[in-house]
Amino acid sequence: MIGLGLVGGSISLGLRARGWHVQGTDLDPTRVEQALQRKVIDAVGLDPASEITFVAVPVRAVASAVEEALRRTDGLVTDVASVKGPVLAAVDSPRFIGGHPMAGSELEGLDGADADMFTGAVWVVTPTATTDDASLARLAAIVSDLGAEMVALEAERHDALVAVVSHVPHLTAATLMRVADERANEHAALLRLAAGGFRDMTRIASGHPAIWPDICFENKSAIVAGLDALIAGLSEMRTAVTDTNRDQLLRYLEQARQARANLPSRGVRPEILSEVRIPIPDRPGMIAEVTMLAAELGVNLSDIEVAHSAEGDRGVLILLVETDRTELFRGGLLARGYRPAISRLQ
Amino acid sequence: MIGLGLVGGSISLGLRARGWHVQGTDLDPTRVEQALQRKVIDAVGLDPASEITFVAVPVRAVASAVEEALRRTDGLVTDVASVKGPVLAAVDSPRFIGGHPMAGSELEGLDGADADMFTGAVWVVTPTATTDDASLARLAAIVSDLGAEMVALEAERHDALVAVVSHVPHLTAATLMRVADERANEHAALLRLAAGGFRDMTRIASGHPAIWPDICFENKSAIVAGLDALIAGLSEMRTAVTDTNRDQLLRYLEQARQARANLPSRGVRPEILSEVRIPIPDRPGMIAEVTMLAAELGVNLSDIEVAHSAEGDRGVLILLVETDRTELFRGGLLARGYRPAISRLQ
Repeated sequence: MIGLGLVGGSISLGLRARGWHVQGTDLDPTRVEQALQRKVIDAVGLDPASEITFVAVPVRAVASAVEEALRRTDGLVTDVASVKGPVLAAVDSPRFIGGHPMAGSELEGLDGADADMFTGAVWVVTPTATTDDASLARLAAIVSDLGAEMVALEAERHDALVAVVSHVPHLTAATLMRVADERANEHAALLRLAAGGFRDMTRIASGHPAIWPDICFENKSAIVAGLDALIAGLSEMRTAVTDTNRDQLLRYLEQARQARANLPSRGVRPEILSEVRIPIPDRPGMIAEVTMLAAELGVNLSDIEVAHSAEGDRGVLILLVETDRTELFRGGLLARGYRPAISRLQ
Repeated sequence: MIGLGLVGGSISLGLRARGWHVQGTDLDPTRVEQALQRKVIDAVGLDPASEITFVAVPVRAVASAVEEALRRTDGLVTDVASVKGPVLAAVDSPRFIGGHPMAGSELEGLDGADADMFTGAVWVVTPTATTDDASLARLAAIVSDLGAEMVALEAERHDALVAVVSHVPHLTAATLMRVADERANEHAALLRLAAGGFRDMTRIASGHPAIWPDICFENKSAIVAGLDALIAGLSEMRTAVTDTNRDQLLRYLEQARQARANLPSRGVRPEILSEVRIPIPDRPGMIAEVTMLAAELGVNLSDIEVAHSAEGDRGVLILLVETDRTELFRGGLLARGYRPAISRLQ
């Protein structure tokens, strides 16, 4: 584990709780000492023989830390940065797979570290055509073991999506809070009136700002596009209000309500699963393609395994998916030239 | 109780739990029947001798329902609408005091009604210079008994403040959800990536839209001003991001973080209280002035009582406030010509 902050500490704790031996480093020696004392890590340092190295450092420092890990170890390397494009552009290795566990805490650093932080969370991975299949399957198994749901996406797509569901909402929460704060100088009563809805909407603005400039600059174009869409949407709302346009306002609000109701629920493991077996040529990139197709189709992958045939030239990719999504997935797989065999479990 | 929806039902349940006899009406006979069956009310109809009548109908119907209640009863009348200007403009009676309990639920109608909905909530009242003092003291006692904190504000100020902390945040949550929804048509994976922060920010968009057009139109000018401030703030954020202006971005986020940390905590009754006794001439409007001053100064009123002297021409207003705000409050009272006597309890 390179970097022993909130996320690095939580992954370390989660892995140790599941029987792994974890070695870790951090630029801050005090933090390393704390991590040892609190049994977040078993030992200090980078092991050249480590099976997997997680890079959990601030977004600007990720690429060089990943390169160092690739040089100094023989195993799989992954990171946890919330912007993926720049890392993927800087590092090209079959042993590196970009990652982004989408969970956090209002607490900071090791104090907030929690072995169960990723239970029910989405953990994005960004394989490429050159990604080693066995490495991707291994990472998928670890992510699943930590209780998270793996979603495979292209780096560029990941960055566009997190701009909409994470980065722009964060800047919006901060802006709502700023607008209220500036009014509060005139009206001391203002903040007493902030009820639950306002508290919910501004909660993420209470986080430490230090990580955000780098995220904003690394993901600049997607964030600016997201802000533009939000500003345009608010201007449409404003027009509906000023025009006393009841129907339009109801349409906007109803669209939002239905979309909110359709947000996939968290932490619910599907109970009716089917096994999808897909014969794949034993060459790199096929698992990445299949898992990214699953993400595109909204098919949740509960488990991923690669079984190699005795002959060695072909393998079988075995996926567990929700039964009610199997026909959709079958259609997508057939369209891409795969021949899936699907059987319902039990 | 006129109107047996979420708020009317909750107040009825709260009052009955505290020993009141509650009669109620609603335009919908099914709802009246349900309210009787679920023991939300004791009996049906409007009692001419009722001590207090609550009007809990949709915002557009409030003024006429208040006028009817004033005609048909001799007691105090109050309402719960989330916009106060239009009601106050339409009704002028010493027996009417505008009100707005700032609590809600994701549930709707009687199904969401809860006797403890107002525990720890702010309950705004909007007295005027002609408001009857005894009525205001009585309403304050009831609000306090329901577990809420009374905050007295001018109607116009209330409307400006709720635009910032409630109405504009609601429209923003809906707009964030719409923006994500429109992207989700292209990217099925989008909504799987929505983590806790996005869920928190869009939760209020899951409410039923029907009440919102009236709120938006009744409070149009304040909402448009709030939307303009938000759009301007988002444009500033956008500029800081496009200019890679780290210092500016950090300033915005730090301002938001500090303001969020300063949000008054909810449901915490101050433990160290002082009693403020203020001799007042026995004429209307003084309690309104003193309680609105408290709201302006951010002084939380834990209890309000009016003691009349035996001679009858003067009274004493007795307030309980947090001890650490007493000097601030004393200064404001002296500046307005009052002569408060303050003593710490215990």
